[in-house]
Amino acid sequence: MGKIANRYLEVLPFAIEERGYHKERHIVSESLFSLSNEYCGIRGVFDEGISAPSLRGSYFNGIYDYAKEDTPIHYKGIIQRTHFMVNSVDWVKVKIVIEGRKLDLAVSDFYNFNRVLDFKRGLLTRSFTWNVKDDLQVHIMFERFVSMVDCHMAFQRITISSNRDTKYDLTFYLDSNVVHWGKDVYFKPIINFKDGLTLATINRTLTTRQKVAALMEIVGPGRRTHKMAPLCVYEKLTGTISAKETLCWTRHVVNLVDKIGNRRAITLWRKGKLELVKSLATGFDQALKKNEQFWADVWHHSDIEIAGDPINQQGIRYNIFQLYQTYHGFDGSNNIGAKGLTGEAYSGHAFWDSETYCLPFYLFNHPASAKNLLMFRYHTLGEAKKRASMLDCQGACYPIATLNGKEGCNLWQHASLQFQPSTGVAYGIYHYVNVTQDIDFLLDYGLEMLLEISRFLLTRGQWNAAHTHFGYYGVMGPDEFQLMVNHNTYTNYMAKRTFDYTLEVLKKHGADNRVNAILNKTKSDASFINDIKQASSSMLILYDESTQLYEQHQGFFDLPHIDPHSIPVQEFPLYAHWSYDRIYRNDLIKQPDVLMFMFLYNQSFSFEEKKKNYEFYEPKTIHESSLSPSVHSILASELDKEQEALSLFSFATRMDLDDYNRNSNEGLHTTSIAAAWMNIVYGFGGLRSDGSVLTINPHIPDFWKSYRFYIYYHGKHIGITVTKNDLTLESEADKTIDIKIGNQIYAFRNNLSLKWPIK
Amino acid sequence: MGKIANRYLEVLPFAIEERGYHKERHIVSESLFSLSNEYCGIRGVFDEGISAPSLRGSYFNGIYDYAKEDTPIHYKGIIQRTHFMVNSVDWVKVKIVIEGRKLDLAVSDFYNFNRVLDFKRGLLTRSFTWNVKDDLQVHIMFERFVSMVDCHMAFQRITISSNRDTKYDLTFYLDSNVVHWGKDVYFKPIINFKDGLTLATINRTLTTRQKVAALMEIVGPGRRTHKMAPLCVYEKLTGTISAKETLCWTRHVVNLVDKIGNRRAITLWRKGKLELVKSLATGFDQALKKNEQFWADVWHHSDIEIAGDPINQQGIRYNIFQLYQTYHGFDGSNNIGAKGLTGEAYSGHAFWDSETYCLPFYLFNHPASAKNLLMFRYHTLGEAKKRASMLDCQGACYPIATLNGKEGCNLWQHASLQFQPSTGVAYGIYHYVNVTQDIDFLLDYGLEMLLEISRFLLTRGQWNAAHTHFGYYGVMGPDEFQLMVNHNTYTNYMAKRTFDYTLEVLKKHGADNRVNAILNKTKSDASFINDIKQASSSMLILYDESTQLYEQHQGFFDLPHIDPHSIPVQEFPLYAHWSYDRIYRNDLIKQPDVLMFMFLYNQSFSFEEKKKNYEFYEPKTIHESSLSPSVHSILASELDKEQEALSLFSFATRMDLDDYNRNSNEGLHTTSIAAAWMNIVYGFGGLRSDGSVLTINPHIPDFWKSYRFYIYYHGKHIGITVTKNDLTLESEADKTIDIKIGNQIYAFRNNLSLKWPIK
Repeated sequence: MGKIANRYLEVLPFAIEERGYHKERHIVSESLFSLSNEYCGIRGVFDEGISAPSLRGSYFNGIYDYAKEDTPIHYKGIIQRTHFMVNSVDWVKVKIVIEGRKLDLAVSDFYNFNRVLDFKRGLLTRSFTWNVKDDLQVHIMFERFVSMVDCHMAFQRITISSNRDTKYDLTFYLDSNVVHWGKDVYFKPIINFKDGLTLATINRTLTTRQKVAALMEIVGPGRRTHKMAPLCVYEKLTGTISAKETLCWTRHVVNLVDKIGNRRAITLWRKGKLELVKSLATGFDQALKKNEQFWADVWHHSDIEIAGDPINQQGIRYNIFQLYQTYHGFDGSNNIGAKGLTGEAYSGHAFWDSETYCLPFYLFNHPASAKNLLMFRYHTLGEAKKRASMLDCQGACYPIATLNGKEGCNLWQHASLQFQPSTGVAYGIYHYVNVTQDIDFLLDYGLEMLLEISRFLLTRGQWNAAHTHFGYYGVMGPDEFQLMVNHNTYTNYMAKRTFDYTLEVLKKHGADNRVNAILNKTKSDASFINDIKQASSSMLILYDESTQLYEQHQGFFDLPHIDPHSIPVQEFPLYAHWSYDRIYRNDLIKQPDVLMFMFLYNQSFSFEEKKKNYEFYEPKTIHESSLSPSVHSILASELDKEQEALSLFSFATRMDLDDYNRNSNEGLHTTSIAAAWMNIVYGFGGLRSDGSVLTINPHIPDFWKSYRFYIYYHGKHIGITVTKNDLTLESEADKTIDIKIGNQIYAFRNNLSLKWPIK
Repeated sequence: MGKIANRYLEVLPFAIEERGYHKERHIVSESLFSLSNEYCGIRGVFDEGISAPSLRGSYFNGIYDYAKEDTPIHYKGIIQRTHFMVNSVDWVKVKIVIEGRKLDLAVSDFYNFNRVLDFKRGLLTRSFTWNVKDDLQVHIMFERFVSMVDCHMAFQRITISSNRDTKYDLTFYLDSNVVHWGKDVYFKPIINFKDGLTLATINRTLTTRQKVAALMEIVGPGRRTHKMAPLCVYEKLTGTISAKETLCWTRHVVNLVDKIGNRRAITLWRKGKLELVKSLATGFDQALKKNEQFWADVWHHSDIEIAGDPINQQGIRYNIFQLYQTYHGFDGSNNIGAKGLTGEAYSGHAFWDSETYCLPFYLFNHPASAKNLLMFRYHTLGEAKKRASMLDCQGACYPIATLNGKEGCNLWQHASLQFQPSTGVAYGIYHYVNVTQDIDFLLDYGLEMLLEISRFLLTRGQWNAAHTHFGYYGVMGPDEFQLMVNHNTYTNYMAKRTFDYTLEVLKKHGADNRVNAILNKTKSDASFINDIKQASSSMLILYDESTQLYEQHQGFFDLPHIDPHSIPVQEFPLYAHWSYDRIYRNDLIKQPDVLMFMFLYNQSFSFEEKKKNYEFYEPKTIHESSLSPSVHSILASELDKEQEALSLFSFATRMDLDDYNRNSNEGLHTTSIAAAWMNIVYGFGGLRSDGSVLTINPHIPDFWKSYRFYIYYHGKHIGITVTKNDLTLESEADKTIDIKIGNQIYAFRNNLSLKWPIK
């Protein structure tokens, strides 16, 4: 099972760099050099294309379509059509012809290839010298960025110099005639426009009828001709470059999407044209400067600095960079896809990872983003209610995988049996409110979701034959190696906590007018409240007092045992090598289940309990989910298992950079990236945010000299520096807050230094 | 859940008759009036076609093809392509034009419609008067039969008379351009032939490349023209019919299939031509006489006579008639599809019903057929071994659904979790050998299957964590309302009996040379034998001594309870109205599971045990399988629950005739038909064949005057007559056998009369 680093990039503090072209890693590089700004994403594709396998992808958050065919096997509760984020307009495409020869790095002769993604500017640069002919060498540089400030704006700059006079042809495309996942085109043409030097193509998705408008204007030399075709516009610039002259073309792009699909094409065109004019007035360099400012602010408040470990230093900064690129909460209708905006795999769907793995990063860096992440669930509450009804239940059941709030997973064994998304949303609300004390959010949005989730959990749960206990039958917990079990303790426990928190909110805020209004709106009467009280107090939590072990589900302790180390390495991943049923009938665990709720509600369990359960469950765990090692590493840190903590952490920050899972070609593991942040802050930093007082309890790995991380908490940016002997907290804000360090609560204002660890 | 008879046919002792055309039952009638002879089957379609919904179907046993598309979701162990029996050459198709008007009962004006299926001759007759015009009435009669003796031969006769001179055009087709399940054509043309008056079309299936050759020659008046087209040949006969003249056309058909696909078309043509010459020499009437003789023999030895209940009398005879039509064991490569040869539903697949529901009928009527049914499993042992290997196991795993021995079911939750087929084959071998004492079959074929099935069961089974007991994890028992459970008692018990019987055979026949040869061939060494001994002796059989209840699976007794009577009638069938997962998380039972093994190994359980378990499980049973009521009725009879026995029996014999399940349009419930036979013979007759002595223990339902059934046992045809006061056994064969009646063993030779029941 050993995972092996597949490293080919330079180790730099604030960038990734590919020196010399690594052809065999081409598609992985496309993923790694991805740019995005939450609104749109573009893979690190070669602008000029390549006649070799490539996953050319340009995506917009929330632009999706439905499958062309129904799910073949229907039963009630299984969705009829799945939906997925579609590959959209290719706005970097450019055909480069020099002296009649087309540039194509799969066949062209070239040298001095270099590619850099700069985390301080969000800029992707690629350059090389093309040996066009024996006597003709042309140096080409591509630069590209998407604006983090003006989300519709994107830029491309191409700089060319030559060793002798030669002719060039550059054809810049805006092309929506792109295939999704190597198969179908999901766009239909609406209209193309030309106005002055501006070209635009406005098209719509097939069944969702969402509009995508792309506009461009090229600044640069050459004689211009243009063409329009369905789904596509392009402009050709032709001319001659003199020896030692350097020519430069800047493409200003504005992309506008209409997710609802009811805006007129002309309106999009007009709005786009205005933005394009603004972009032209600003210029490439000035716009890039704005990006630099945005990122300076991010690094100022969200950096993690590790002294003595450049490998992980680069890794964690790459992660923070990609997390901010993927999501920074400017729109409550966006969520975080498992692959962000970097690939078509997992259909662009958001999973329960959003609330359990991603939320903490935003909660402690940019709480407004955390709130918007939860607002996505509020905006899709109506769909969650429909989904509950499809499952013959009431209330709200949040989907396993979604872009638009509807269930997107057509595997009943996941979509109809896993309720982590619903309990995860409830947990997210609790966690967000606990950290931010945002009572307005709680009463304006959170409570309504809590009541509807509780109603779902109440109607999906069942009483046993003797009517002595309540729980969930026929479920799959987070551990997807146990398919259809009864009384999965994660599900039962999380449901109980959902009920209890809902009841607590009602009790605590009962006097607020909004509470009554929501009770009326959600038709939550006294009998319903009583039912959830009953269900909570009778919830079956399988716990063995003598061993202090929670049983993962009814019967787990009696399952046939398989030692993970007895499985030959070539049988991983098990899904691909084992008969499907075989995965499900033993005590192997894919990812944390009991340990997951012990992580989420960490302070509700004693050290001994956590230790016992960790030592029982971790050795059975295969970690066949990229989300698994980090949670184990965090618990191992807490349990003073430093070696295990480190070994489980070892590929967390560089999952994609070193392609540990050999599938980064499909896109980045965005939610795992969030887990890597948690691994440092919750794991080594010992942050705990599920109690009444924020707690830190740092450990420092042996081979680190020191590290510093930042959290934003109750209006204060706090820098926390851990060395071998000291712990320092710093903040510029003058407010005093309580913070627990180790076992001691401190009133912290601007500076606090402690000898650390306390012996 | 009450099922309601939908009766429209006349009640006759040896026929079904439709008086007046029941348009709304058209497709159901097509099923009910089906003819078949094991080799081929033809639905009761209108020869002349109809411009109204119809399921026009002609099938050949073992002629099938693969789906055009892969199963969309792949995991290991899930088959990539399913296969199914395909609709084949339409050999009854005829276009009838009188005075320029085409006969089409959907639009033509007609009266005196009558349709009869005669069980004594296997003849389908249909007649009516067509009111072609005000002054033109034409009487038409169609007759059709397939030969039970010469399986390739089939006949059609059309007789027409008219009230005045008129012109006729009759076009007789052999047409392989037929759509399967309303969608695709699965035949490709090879060649057509004409020789004298004989026309032939020889075609092949798409991917399996099996050949189907159809030849015909029409005997009758008219000027002939013929045409050939890809997949189709036809001959038109044109002439004039005089007033009051009666004209008659006889179509002689020979169908030959080449299941392997390696025979040359010319060879098929020559063989077919020879048979056609024979058919022409024999003639329609003489061939029909042979059929009559065949059926006379069937009725002589296999009839069930019920005095005082004409409804069930007709029902049970219809069933016996259809069972013999579907299968009489002339070819060991045939099996019994769930719908026989009467429709495309269930893909023509054979299920585990073959050994558990159908075998007893043949075992006690025509043991050679029973043996051939088991030989199908021997011939497909190689495929069963491949299937076991797909499931990461060794030995032989028989498929859930098959035509060719390969798994045809692409639902993993059935195909990878249900092992009833494998334990069913082992049971069938045991049952067949126990009744026939056919030791040659056992040692030449049976033992090899037993060893390979045992090896599968050994490798699929697992030891619990403490290694104290053995059993099956992640299975679905016969009760398909419990999807993925551990220690399903049916599976564990049947596996244990399979192991035990295998060990018993090895012990008992160890001295026979063949045993050692098979042990070698199957690589069954001492350690393997020891392993199955261990597995058997440690098999977990969940049994509660205090209540005498077997628990259906681990945890069943604690499942949430749902009272079947609380479910509104419109929610049935549950598959269509309940969320898929909801079906699986309560104590509702679809069909017998614990009671199923108590039926199969009936004499291994005490009366008290059977009673306790029946009273616990039956009230939880929905009977959402047509196979369910009969087994319960049989047990109810044994347990002196006469009312329940009768009420569960009430629709057994007429499931299709009265279309109780509202789906007989798709084809007959052939395996349920076999269950109806068991319901009388095992239920009321009290036959038990799982002990060392054959036992009968008859009951007679109150409203029957008397009944008689026949069994063939140890070379003797035995007629068993039960009246209110007497029980009589009669046989012409002079051998003496032991037979247990009630609790007493009798030496029976020719005649035995008892006062009955014994008080």
